[in-house]
Amino acid sequence: MIGFIGLGIMGSRMAENLLSKGFDLVVHNRTKEKAQSLLDKGAQWADSPAEVARKADVVFTMLANPSIVEKIVFDKDGLFNGFSEGKLWVDCSTVDPAFSRKMAQEANSRGIRFLDAPVTGSKIPAEKAELVFLVGGKEEDMNEVRDMMNAMGKDISFQGENGMGASMKLVINLMLGQAMAVFSEAVALGEGMGLDREKVINTLLAGPTAAPALKGKKDKILQDEFSPEFPLVHLQKDLYLATKAGFENGVPMPIANVTKEIYALAKQSGLSEQDFSAISRFLSSKSAK
Amino acid sequence: MIGFIGLGIMGSRMAENLLSKGFDLVVHNRTKEKAQSLLDKGAQWADSPAEVARKADVVFTMLANPSIVEKIVFDKDGLFNGFSEGKLWVDCSTVDPAFSRKMAQEANSRGIRFLDAPVTGSKIPAEKAELVFLVGGKEEDMNEVRDMMNAMGKDISFQGENGMGASMKLVINLMLGQAMAVFSEAVALGEGMGLDREKVINTLLAGPTAAPALKGKKDKILQDEFSPEFPLVHLQKDLYLATKAGFENGVPMPIANVTKEIYALAKQSGLSEQDFSAISRFLSSKSAK
Amino acid sequence: MIGFIGLGIMGSRMAENLLSKGFDLVVHNRTKEKAQSLLDKGAQWADSPAEVARKADVVFTMLANPSIVEKIVFDKDGLFNGFSEGKLWVDCSTVDPAFSRKMAQEANSRGIRFLDAPVTGSKIPAEKAELVFLVGGKEEDMNEVRDMMNAMGKDISFQGENGMGASMKLVINLMLGQAMAVFSEAVALGEGMGLDREKVINTLLAGPTAAPALKGKKDKILQDEFSPEFPLVHLQKDLYLATKAGFENGVPMPIANVTKEIYALAKQSGLSEQDFSAISRFLSSKSAK
Amino acid sequence: MIGFIGLGIMGSRMAENLLSKGFDLVVHNRTKEKAQSLLDKGAQWADSPAEVARKADVVFTMLANPSIVEKIVFDKDGLFNGFSEGKLWVDCSTVDPAFSRKMAQEANSRGIRFLDAPVTGSKIPAEKAELVFLVGGKEEDMNEVRDMMNAMGKDISFQGENGMGASMKLVINLMLGQAMAVFSEAVALGEGMGLDREKVINTLLAGPTAAPALKGKKDKILQDEFSPEFPLVHLQKDLYLATKAGFENGVPMPIANVTKEIYALAKQSGLSEQDFSAISRFLSSKSAK
Repeated sequence: MIGFIGLGIMGSRMAENLLSKGFDLVVHNRTKEKAQSLLDKGAQWADSPAEVARKADVVFTMLANPSIVEKIVFDKDGLFNGFSEGKLWVDCSTVDPAFSRKMAQEANSRGIRFLDAPVTGSKIPAEKAELVFLVGGKEEDMNEVRDMMNAMGKDISFQGENGMGASMKLVINLMLGQAMAVFSEAVALGEGMGLDREKVINTLLAGPTAAPALKGKKDKILQDEFSPEFPLVHLQKDLYLATKAGFENGVPMPIANVTKEIYALAKQSGLSEQDFSAISRFLSSKSAK
Repeated sequence: MIGFIGLGIMGSRMAENLLSKGFDLVVHNRTKEKAQSLLDKGAQWADSPAEVARKADVVFTMLANPSIVEKIVFDKDGLFNGFSEGKLWVDCSTVDPAFSRKMAQEANSRGIRFLDAPVTGSKIPAEKAELVFLVGGKEEDMNEVRDMMNAMGKDISFQGENGMGASMKLVINLMLGQAMAVFSEAVALGEGMGLDREKVINTLLAGPTAAPALKGKKDKILQDEFSPEFPLVHLQKDLYLATKAGFENGVPMPIANVTKEIYALAKQSGLSEQDFSAISRFLSSKSAK
Repeated sequence: MIGFIGLGIMGSRMAENLLSKGFDLVVHNRTKEKAQSLLDKGAQWADSPAEVARKADVVFTMLANPSIVEKIVFDKDGLFNGFSEGKLWVDCSTVDPAFSRKMAQEANSRGIRFLDAPVTGSKIPAEKAELVFLVGGKEEDMNEVRDMMNAMGKDISFQGENGMGASMKLVINLMLGQAMAVFSEAVALGEGMGLDREKVINTLLAGPTAAPALKGKKDKILQDEFSPEFPLVHLQKDLYLATKAGFENGVPMPIANVTKEIYALAKQSGLSEQDFSAISRFLSSKSAK
Repeated sequence: MIGFIGLGIMGSRMAENLLSKGFDLVVHNRTKEKAQSLLDKGAQWADSPAEVARKADVVFTMLANPSIVEKIVFDKDGLFNGFSEGKLWVDCSTVDPAFSRKMAQEANSRGIRFLDAPVTGSKIPAEKAELVFLVGGKEEDMNEVRDMMNAMGKDISFQGENGMGASMKLVINLMLGQAMAVFSEAVALGEGMGLDREKVINTLLAGPTAAPALKGKKDKILQDEFSPEFPLVHLQKDLYLATKAGFENGVPMPIANVTKEIYALAKQSGLSEQDFSAISRFLSSKSAK
C-alpha cells in the first residue's frame, strides 16, 4: 500500500497515475473534496497523515511549502506519529535543501527512511506521467520506489545525498523563472521598437536563444490569459529559496535576485495567483498596468 | 560583382562562402593580411571602400560598431564617394536601430538603396553558411540579394522597414546574453550547493529550461577555456544597445540592465576579449577571480 | 544685456532673480505666455533665439533636453545665426557631457565662447537664488559671468574643461535619484515589517544614513502628494545619461542601472509627470498600484 | 550586577563604558584574552553564559549572528540554564526580527523577560558612548535598563513590541549599506568621466545628496585603506536579513537585492573581512581588481 498526501494541482494528477497503473493507494488531503475522484476510482481515504502512515509502507508527500510539510509530519496526528520503523517517506514538495536535510535528520532519528524527490514539470506533465524525479538520499531507497516513480514520470535522476534532489530542483526552477522573465523583457523590447509582437514571439521560440520550456506558454502569452498551471507566487518563492541558498553558500547571484524582485513587483500588482508566465503582462511595454 | 568590407571573424567566413559559391568578389579591410586567403582564392582587392563601391553593384559591410561604419561610408575614400545612384548597400553589422535608420536616410538622400541585414549566429554558423539574415528595408531589394544571402546563410527573415532588421537582431542578442548569464548563475548555485558541476551542466542542457544555443558553449565552460568566437566586449555592447533602445521606447528592462552590468564587471576584470561565455568564469562560485 | 532662453520651472525663476538684481534681460520661450510676468517687470521679448543672440552679450539657456538645445541653437532662427564672434553662451541645461563637448566645439568653430553650467537644486532653490553652478570651460569666461551666477545661486564650482560641469551634474543627479529610491525601499520595508511609517521616516531623516536632500521631500511622501518640482521623467532621463556615461567610460554601475529601471517602471505606471519622489508611492508596500 | 556576553569590536567597547560609569560587571567571551583589559579594570570573569546568568540581574549580549546567539542561550551551559525567573535578557546583536520574536517566546516561556535592543553606530560611536539603542519589547523593561543604555549610548528609541527593535535596525543598516554603495558608484562614474576623484568625493560629501554617515569613511576611501570597523561580510549579512524580511512581508526591494549581490561579489573578491567601505575599491573604475 502506498500513501499519498497533498492533492493539489500536481499531487492529484500524480496519485491518479499511481492508481491507474495498479498501485493500491491511501490518500489524505486538507480538504476531502479534492480526493473524491480518486476515492471513486478505488483509493482509500485516511482521516489524518498518521493514519496514512500506519496503513502504507511508502508515503509520498506533495505540499506547497516547508511550513505545511512540518505541520503534516510533526502534528499530533502527523506522519511521524503513524510511521513504524523502517518505513519510507518520499517528499516531492519543492523546498530548500537545508529543510530537506533537516527532514532527513528528523526522519532518520525516528528510524524512518527519507528521500527528497522533487519533480520537474507542472500540470500537463503531471497528468501525462512525464515528470522527472530529482532524488536525494540513499540509492537503494530510490530503487525501492522506482516503479512508483515510473508510474508518475518519465525519468528518475539520482543527485546524491539527502538535500541534493531539492538542490537540483531549485537550480531548475531558477532557470525556468529566469527563462520566462528574460523572454518577456525581450518581447517587450521588440514590441516597443515597433516589431510585430507575434512575429517576435514566434521568431524567438523557433530559434536557439529561447528555452524550449517557453513553447508551452506561448498561447497564454499571445492571448494574455494566465490561468494558473504554476502560480506566480510559487515561482517567486522558489526564486527566493534559490537566492537564499546562494547566500548560504557564498554564491553571488545578481541577476536571479533582480528577477526575483520583478516577480515580487508583479505579485504585488495583483498577478500572484496567475500563472507565472503572467510576468510577460507585467513587463509588456503596451500593458496598461 | 559583389563588394565585401570588413573581414573579421564573421566577415571573412561570409565572404569565403560567397566566393566558394561562385560569386565574383571585391574586398576591402583595414588590414590587408586578413584578405590574403580570399585573394588567393580569386577575390579582387580594393584599396578603399570607395573603390569597392565603384566596382560592385551590391556592397556588404560587416563591421564592429557604428563609428567604424560611419568612417567606412563617410570618409573621403568612403563608400558614399564611390557609389553611383541606384546601387545597393547591405549592412550586416550589429548596430542600433536608430543608427540603421540614419544610415538609410543618408544612403537614400544620395540615391543609394539600403538594407539593414544583421545576422544571427557566430563563428561556426558563419563558416557553415548557417547564418540567419534579419532584414529591414524594401522587400524587393532583399529579393535582389536573396541568392547571395542564401550562399552565406540558411534563412532570411524579413522584419519590416529600415531599422527593423537591426531591431530584431538586438532582441536576439539580448536573449543570447541573458541565456548565458542566467545559465552561469544557475550552474554556480548548483556547484555552491554541492552538486557536481558537470552533472548540473549536463542536466540543464538536456532539459527544457536552457536555451539550445548554450550547447555550443558547453566545452568552453567545462574546460574553462574561452578563446573568442563572440567576444564578451561585443556582447556587452549589444546589451547596451538593447537597453538604450529600451530607454528610447519607454520599455523598462530591469533584468537586462543588471545583466549588462555584470558583463561590464566581467569586462573590467580582464575578460573583455574572451568569448562572452567567460561570464561563467566570472560568476563561478569556485573562481579565484 | 543678458539673454535668457527657456522659461520653465527652473528658467523662469532664474531669470526673475537676474531681473530683480538689476540686470537687463532679453528673453525668449517657446510659448510667450510663460514670459509675461518677466515682461511685466521690464524684461524685453525676443521673437527668436537669433534675436536674443543679436541683442545680448551673454546668453543663458535652460532647456529640457539635448534635442531642444540643438533646435534652439542650430535652427534657421537659432542662437548661432544671431551671435557675433566673441559672444558667450552659457548652457545651464542638464545634458550629457558628450553633448556639452559637442556644443563647445560647434560654438568655438563659430568663434563663440561656451560654458556648460548646469545647476544643482530644483524649484525652491531656484526661487531663493540658492542654486549651485557646476561649470566646465575656460575659467576666465566663468569669471565674466560670476556676478550673474551669484544673482541666481549661492555657489559656483569650477570643474574643469568643457563637459566637466555636465559630468559633475550627472554625478549629483545620480546621487539624488539613488537617495530617493533607496530611502523609499527602506521605508517600505519598515512599514512592511509593522513599524509605524511616519516614525520610520522621521527616524531615518533625523539620522546619519539618509541624504539631507530628502528632508525637503518629507511632506510630499507623508501626504502621498507629488506635484512636480523635479518631474520623475526628467530624473529618469538623468539616470539614463549617467549610465550611458558609465558605459562610454567603462564604469560598471549595477545599482544605478537597476534604480533607473525602477523609475522606468514607475514612469510606465503613470507617475511620469509627478515629482520624482513619487517613486516612494511606487515602492510602497501598502500601495494599491 | 550586570552581565555582558560577546566582547568583539562593539561589545568590548560597550562593556568598557558600563564599567567606567561605575556599573558592576560580569563578563564572558568565547576567548578569554579579549576580556583581559576589562578584568584588569575590575570586571568579573564567568566561565560560561550560565554562570553570567546566575550572577547578574540583567544580561546584555552582543553577538555576531543568530546561530551564535542560539548557542549562547540554549547550550547546556547556556544563558537559559543559569537564569532564574523574572531576570532580563537584552540582546543587542543585529539579527532578523523573526529571530528576535522567537527568542522573546523562548525567554518568556521560561519566565525570563526579553528586549531586542540592537544599536546603530560602529566602532567609534561604541567607544565614545554615542550609540543609539533601538528597542523592542515592554516599555517598563526598557526603563529598567535606561541608565545602563545611557552609559553606552546617546539615545534610546522605543520601537514597539519584541522584534521591532530588530526591524528598525535592519532598516537602518540597509540605508547604510545602500548609502556607501551608491556613493561608490557615483565616485567611480565621476572619476571615469575625467573628474578629479578627490574633488568629486569632497563635493558630494559637502552637498545634500550624500548621507552624512559617509563622512566618517572619507579617509578610508581616499587612502584606499579598509581596516575593519564594520566588516563587509557583516554588512552583507544584514542586507540579506533585510531582503529576507522584505520577502517575508511581501515588500519588493529590487535595489536592495542588487546592492546585496554587489557586496557578495566584493566579498568573493577577497574583501570580506575589510571594512564595508571597501565596496568603493570594488566599484572603482581605476581598480586593478
